[in-house]
Formats: sequence, structure tokens, C-alpha cells
Amino acid sequence: MKLTILGCYSATPRTFTNPTSQILEIRNHLFLIDCGEGTQVQLRKNKIKFSRIKHIFISHLHGDHFFGLPGLISTFRLLGRETEMHIYGPKGIKEAITLFLKLGDSWTNYPLIFHELDSKESELVFEDEKVSVHTIPLDHRVYTNGFLFKEKSLPRKLDVDAVAKHEIDRSQYNNIKNGADGVLENGEIISNKDLTIDPPSPKSYAFCSDTAYNEAILPLIKNVNTLYHESTFLETNVDLCKKTKHATAKQAAQIALKANVDNLILGHYSTRYKSIDLFKEEALEVFPDVELADDGKSFEI
Amino acid sequence: MKLTILGCYSATPRTFTNPTSQILEIRNHLFLIDCGEGTQVQLRKNKIKFSRIKHIFISHLHGDHFFGLPGLISTFRLLGRETEMHIYGPKGIKEAITLFLKLGDSWTNYPLIFHELDSKESELVFEDEKVSVHTIPLDHRVYTNGFLFKEKSLPRKLDVDAVAKHEIDRSQYNNIKNGADGVLENGEIISNKDLTIDPPSPKSYAFCSDTAYNEAILPLIKNVNTLYHESTFLETNVDLCKKTKHATAKQAAQIALKANVDNLILGHYSTRYKSIDLFKEEALEVFPDVELADDGKSFEI
Repeated sequence: MKLTILGCYSATPRTFTNPTSQILEIRNHLFLIDCGEGTQVQLRKNKIKFSRIKHIFISHLHGDHFFGLPGLISTFRLLGRETEMHIYGPKGIKEAITLFLKLGDSWTNYPLIFHELDSKESELVFEDEKVSVHTIPLDHRVYTNGFLFKEKSLPRKLDVDAVAKHEIDRSQYNNIKNGADGVLENGEIISNKDLTIDPPSPKSYAFCSDTAYNEAILPLIKNVNTLYHESTFLETNVDLCKKTKHATAKQAAQIALKANVDNLILGHYSTRYKSIDLFKEEALEVFPDVELADDGKSFEI
Repeated sequence: MKLTILGCYSATPRTFTNPTSQILEIRNHLFLIDCGEGTQVQLRKNKIKFSRIKHIFISHLHGDHFFGLPGLISTFRLLGRETEMHIYGPKGIKEAITLFLKLGDSWTNYPLIFHELDSKESELVFEDEKVSVHTIPLDHRVYTNGFLFKEKSLPRKLDVDAVAKHEIDRSQYNNIKNGADGVLENGEIISNKDLTIDPPSPKSYAFCSDTAYNEAILPLIKNVNTLYHESTFLETNVDLCKKTKHATAKQAAQIALKANVDNLILGHYSTRYKSIDLFKEEALEVFPDVELADDGKSFEI
């Protein structure tokens, strides 16, 4: 699983910083998470093959998380896209996007399918044989969801040396991958564990932005590999969190600790601070494995 | 009058090119013309004091001319703007922008005043004692207006050496600027033309994008100082103009010639060509004074 940060700064696009958008590559899917203004340019700059994006997840309808969406949808039209595009986001997103396209008489020539969200409980919004995506209800000024991306378990991997040594017939390979023992020509049984190796353990990624400190999400994100949690402010400005429904770096680290995640990525920084290193320093006092998101930076999960 | 090109490429924002947006500085007004995605970042990059913008003119509702507007409006709110903002654009623009703000519960804390246009005739949309702005109905796939910006004549300028030489009393200065003759203490009359010099002649700028070749605009833009006329294509692709309702560089030059303008600025280039110099070469075959718009370039008018 590979996460590429296209933008991770709060509020407005600036000369050198971009509003929220991420690309998650997971089991050959290319998921776009949020789409602030300028996301299509960030996709180009980061050399993402964006025709491969078929699913866009929008957390909430503040401008710094979705004002890039009408432009991206229009650009796909101009590029001659034919494959369908699924958009998951708060109720109202369909009307807004559709109105923008209608005004320009710029309907897409590919199917544009909206999945509008309004549940306050976590729900499964996408699933196939390889991955699942659940919402993570967050606590922000408007209706907001984070998203939990989980790989599914793969079948066991064939130990090619072992099956060759035992001269197992190829016709048994699929069954063995699915857990069956091997059977030799003389009827002897070879245990599955002697013919297979463990598949890579499935990974998980939780995207949580924007949100106030909210322990209600802990059961949903428990033990994920990587948690992206917003940290708009430092503790010196914790008073601003209540009004704006944002979190500090320390609060993000507290959530990471209580959820027992492997590592924490911070982002959605206010640009009022002189360095984003301050966010990492603050979080490290609470939780040991902290990374800083930054525009154009990638993370292997 | 000073024109700064923020973006002048057609269709989509790219890594190094921006969709249409311009700043016109005219008699202390800072007018924004069109607002493609990324305009607010271009304003920052070009160090425009954008709190000074009080009037935004939108030609039409294709994405590359207005998808930057919701973000710019929101940024003004975040910057604590209080002065009113006037937006001139096609009918429908108010509903679209308002819906985007409503979804994010992000109403402006400054007055946002829409002037919706639907006339197919040229009309006066803004006027004060210093300038006027008229629409220029264009021929595009959707309802589109160009805009004609005209300075008004200034009063005559006092010739400070002449009034000193004749010992004209200061109490007469305003009357003289407004055309009156001077009167000496002995009753002698000094002709106004001997006491004043000509004011700078008022300048005019016509913005015409997007449009097919359209001679109907000639009476409106006759004798303007500077004409910005779109040139999406070269003559090698003139066949595309009919379907897309765009113009070639040659057609733009023909309009400039027939309208007897001082100079022509080309823009709204398709990115299919290897150099924008080709547009200038083509236009120069028809009209002698041609400049190429480019992102970040300024023109004195």
C-alpha cells in the first residue's frame, strides 16, 4: 500500500502549499481521498496516472477538501475518459457538482456515480475481493467522515520449492493455496503448512481529517497500521480547537496511542507556525512513531 | 492602465500553465477578469494585493473561466474581508456559488453582490466617475460576454508654469481645469488653452474570450487601444473552430485589423502546439502589432 500526499495544509491553497488531497494505491486500486483546489495539477506534478482513479472519497464539503472536484471531473471529460467514476461524499455533493457541470453544458461522457453519505454510524461504502472501505464518522463543524481502507487477507502462497520437491501435481495448486493438503500419487498426505508460506499480512490505513479530538473513533481505527490524523494546531493554540473543531498534534498522538496503531502521519497544518517540525516534536512526546505529511511526499504502508 | 495575465491557456490547469484569469488595474480599480481554478494562487505568485479587488467579471461558466471562484470567495472570508464584492457573470452563477458556500456552511462575512447577466445586447454593467465597463456579447458554445473597460476623460491639466507666469490667482485653478479662461487683476483674459495642457487621453481595453470569429463585435471594440482576443487554434486546425466556437490566431488578427485597434494580445491557447510563438507568427501576417499573453506577464496600456 502506498500513500502519496498531494496536499496537506489547511484552509487555502498558497504558492507552495496545497489543501487536502491524497492518493492511496491499494491492491491495484488508485483511490483519491479529498480533492482541494489544485488537486489535478498536483496529480500531474506527482506523475500519478490519474486515468486509473475510479473512486474518489470526499470527507466533507469545506472548500479545502472538495473545490478541486468540478475541475478534475471536467478534465477527465476533456481527456476522453469512458470508464465510470464513483464519488463518495456527504449528501449534497451530487447536486453541487451536477449544477456546475450543467451551467457549462459540460456533462461527462463517462458515467459519474455518486454515493451520498449521511449516516452518523460507520458504514461499508466500498468492497471487492481485495479491499474494503468503511466510513469513520468524525467530529467537525459540518458532517464529516474519515475513511478506513483495509486490505483483505490473501490466499496462502505456494512454496514453489516444496511442491517441486514433493512432485505435487499442478492440478492441486489452487486447492493448496486455499488451504488443502497435498496428495501424492501413492496416497501420502503432505500437510498444507509444509507446502505453503504465509501471505503478507493485510494492511490498513485510516484517514481522519478534519476532526476535533474524538475518542469515539477508537474502536474503528484500533490496531490499524497507519493513521493519518489531522493536527491543525499546536497545544499553544488548543483553545482554537473547540471553536473550529480541529485537533492539536498532541491530541492526534493521544488518539494514535489509544488506538494502538503502528504509526501516525500528521497533516492539515495551519500555516501560522514557522515550521511543521513543531508538530512532530509535540506528537513525539506522546507517541513514538510519528511522520509528517508534506505535499509530494510518499509513504509505504 | 496595467494588465497582468494570471492565466491564458485553454481547457485545464497544468503544471506550468493556468486557465484564464487577468487583473486589470484601471484608475485605481483592481478588476479581476475570469477566475479559472488556481487563480488565488496565481494572485499570490504575482504579488497582487488581492484585498483591493472589489469587482470580478466572469465571461462564461466553463470551468476554465470560473472554477477558481468558490475558493477565492472562501479565502476572502478566511482573510477577514469586510468590504463588499461585486460579481458580474451569466445567470446561474449566484445559485452555483451560493450552493457551494451553503454546503460548507461557509457564508461570507462580507457582502457578496451578484450582477447576473442574460442580455444578448451589449450593456453597461459598471460605471463610476472614472471608468465604465460594458459587456461584449460573444459567440461561444454557452452564453458568453467579453468586457470593454474604458477610462473616462480627465479634466484638463493646469500648466503650472503658465499660471505662475501670468500670476493667476489660485481661486481660479478649478475653473480653469474645467475649461474656463483665466482673468488677470487688470481684467485681461488669458485663453484656457494657454493655461492648460491636454490630459492623458483615456484608454480602453477589450477582453474577448471565448469566442468564434464574430464581426458583430466590431462596432463595440472599434478603435480600442488594446484588444485581448482568444486564439485557441492555428489555421491548421481551423476546422475545430466551428464545432468548439473558438478562433484562430489569424481570425483574431482579422478582428483587430477591422476594429482598427492599436494592438492585439493573443491568448487562450490550446496546448497542442509546440510553441505559442506560432500564434504570433500567424497573426502578424494580418496585423502588425501583436503581443502574446503568458502567465505572469504584464502589459501597460
